[in-house]
Amino acid sequence: MSQGKLLYAQSGGVTAVINATAAAVIDTARRRKVPVLAARNGIIGALREDLIDTSKESAAAIKALRHTPGGAFGSCRFKLKSLEQDRARYERLIAVLKAHDIRWFLYNGGNDSADTSLKISQIARELGYPVNVVGVPKTVDNDLAVTDCCPGFGSVAKYTAVSVAEASLDVESMCASSTKVFIVEVMGRHAGWIAAAGGLAARKAGDPPHLILFPEVAFDEDAFLARVKATVERVGYCTVVASEGLKNAAGQFLAEAGTRDAFGHAQLGGVAPVLAQLVRQKLGYKYHWALPDYLQRSARHLASKTDAEQAWAVGKAAVEYALAGRNAVMPVIVRTSDAPYRWKIEPAPLERVANHEKTLPKGFISRDGYGITAAARRYLEPLIRGEDPPKYLRDGLPDYVRLGNAAVRRKLPRYEIAD
Amino acid sequence: MSQGKLLYAQSGGVTAVINATAAAVIDTARRRKVPVLAARNGIIGALREDLIDTSKESAAAIKALRHTPGGAFGSCRFKLKSLEQDRARYERLIAVLKAHDIRWFLYNGGNDSADTSLKISQIARELGYPVNVVGVPKTVDNDLAVTDCCPGFGSVAKYTAVSVAEASLDVESMCASSTKVFIVEVMGRHAGWIAAAGGLAARKAGDPPHLILFPEVAFDEDAFLARVKATVERVGYCTVVASEGLKNAAGQFLAEAGTRDAFGHAQLGGVAPVLAQLVRQKLGYKYHWALPDYLQRSARHLASKTDAEQAWAVGKAAVEYALAGRNAVMPVIVRTSDAPYRWKIEPAPLERVANHEKTLPKGFISRDGYGITAAARRYLEPLIRGEDPPKYLRDGLPDYVRLGNAAVRRKLPRYEIAD
Repeated sequence: MSQGKLLYAQSGGVTAVINATAAAVIDTARRRKVPVLAARNGIIGALREDLIDTSKESAAAIKALRHTPGGAFGSCRFKLKSLEQDRARYERLIAVLKAHDIRWFLYNGGNDSADTSLKISQIARELGYPVNVVGVPKTVDNDLAVTDCCPGFGSVAKYTAVSVAEASLDVESMCASSTKVFIVEVMGRHAGWIAAAGGLAARKAGDPPHLILFPEVAFDEDAFLARVKATVERVGYCTVVASEGLKNAAGQFLAEAGTRDAFGHAQLGGVAPVLAQLVRQKLGYKYHWALPDYLQRSARHLASKTDAEQAWAVGKAAVEYALAGRNAVMPVIVRTSDAPYRWKIEPAPLERVANHEKTLPKGFISRDGYGITAAARRYLEPLIRGEDPPKYLRDGLPDYVRLGNAAVRRKLPRYEIAD
Repeated sequence: MSQGKLLYAQSGGVTAVINATAAAVIDTARRRKVPVLAARNGIIGALREDLIDTSKESAAAIKALRHTPGGAFGSCRFKLKSLEQDRARYERLIAVLKAHDIRWFLYNGGNDSADTSLKISQIARELGYPVNVVGVPKTVDNDLAVTDCCPGFGSVAKYTAVSVAEASLDVESMCASSTKVFIVEVMGRHAGWIAAAGGLAARKAGDPPHLILFPEVAFDEDAFLARVKATVERVGYCTVVASEGLKNAAGQFLAEAGTRDAFGHAQLGGVAPVLAQLVRQKLGYKYHWALPDYLQRSARHLASKTDAEQAWAVGKAAVEYALAGRNAVMPVIVRTSDAPYRWKIEPAPLERVANHEKTLPKGFISRDGYGITAAARRYLEPLIRGEDPPKYLRDGLPDYVRLGNAAVRRKLPRYEIAD
């Protein structure tokens, strides 16, 4: 008689700590003697029956996994549509689960995967296949509902705050004769959570960053330039944190509105150079800009300890919930106290999480629109607290691991996914 | 009777560890009971008689300075010309040194400041003012002659190697359904030292980065695109490290050649977006690019221990040389062994250092022009070895210090510098 297996899959943009969640899932399941399969490249692997046998990985590899960025089994950008539209795919998924005796399915992702998890639990029930589906939270965007924060966010927040503090010290030293305006562009297409975290670099009023540009606040060119000028005149330089999702009053992304390449195409992915050109043309200041892009969300070397612990905790709880028979839930982080910061994990129904985007509360943006409030600080600061550096090897690089990812033998006919 | 004072000044682009040199200068001089003044904003402060009394800084502040990025007393981009052309300025400098009884002058910078140090020592001799001038090496560009490496370079090299490794793990996880080409642009206008350091991210053949684009190798669009395509087809994705100084066969910077903004101006400071557009237009791959800019040279949180130790050692030696009566020298790093890595500090005549730019040796670039050789690895790897993290405070940020920088009372008439 088979005891059943657990399937774990990663979804969407990866984070510095999603592998800590993966390591917790495997570690917790191993203690309970439950075999863990992983889907290669997320739900795509689950559909294609491209599964990985994690039992082949050594305890040392799983230990190193806890400190390794990226998604160890592969993740994907692939959204299943409604049960009506994508019925064949959902049925295929159930067939794969059944073929491999999967009784517990853990899907580690953001909003879309919470939604997918919910639908899989629904169709499984409809088809009479017994599987407990548990969503596991993860996203640098911090936009999941119900949970107080999302694993992955605290580390990108810490990276952003530390980088802004460091680069500002650099600019400050040189501003008398060199760069006067420094712009760093951060992720956050729809919500300014990461931009807000840049504000933590300022320990006291007047410290950099001097201006934060949120996607929630329409960009006002004149007001922005006046602020930059006043800041340079007052402190000698100006550090700006700009969200990639910054929009003008007409609702257009600035990154797409301003600059065209030699072929006349809109330049994508660069609000910082647009702002920099503006500063040069209108104010004549020497500028520099940075766009850390993936560096910010993969910077495991600078992970927040709080974040790494929470990433582990949701993975552990997800296994425990699934094995305890819970279905269509997600372990969420509940904050019980700001100071001292205290949190616990609780199960929340996936219905409450799926398709609800959590945006930056109005009360987190200062009245002038260019900074964060004390309430934002109370919320954000505990999330970047503590360090959890990886082990470094003698060659000066962190001890990051690439798993063997041995394939499980297929039992079903091949299945093609049209992209 | 006065005993004389020591003047320390920082010059040019700052680094993650130039303040470790500053801390070593102050610490060593304090042990010898020699008062240390610092020039505010480098040579500009020395000319303006804008001096800082470092004796007002606490021992705790100097201790924290060792771990603080940026230039604590301010640096500058300001080059003194020849003794003939800039005679009035050199004479002013000597007047300032004399007014404050400065008997030892330490100038911490790159090629230009080695040259300036040499000239100051020459005019002082000519004017009969007794001052020992010692150049102190510093530059992320690693282009100073004589010294085996330059303090500041090892840390930016470590930042680059670690960031390339981390971001590549991220891209690797997503490449089946998302970004296939990732380009990170690194500093190095004239020499590919930092780009080469990106190659350390690869522990074994085939590891990312898959392509390095050096300023020393003329960019060949067709060959580049063919390599990107072959890499994506072989491993699923392609990580590219591109030097900001990349040039085409006609010797033009790619960052200036390719892209124009909406106003028809060449876009400055962005070879990565130019390459990314090329990849999209010619190969159709989804891309991302990063441009860490100042983040790379200010990332004290990821400093190399070798680098931090060498930055301290040159500061300490500079004081010892000056107090021992040496003049027109620079403490340089001499490598006595690759494996185990061993180094020592020796004095070198400034004449041998000034105005000689050290470029990447031909033997460090692989025959195909897209990678580094074993010789490059032997040279580079010890420089990123070891970690020296700053202390972090409870708020999750490093304990970086801003000094009080109390001004010394002026003794001379004001002096204006036309910029």
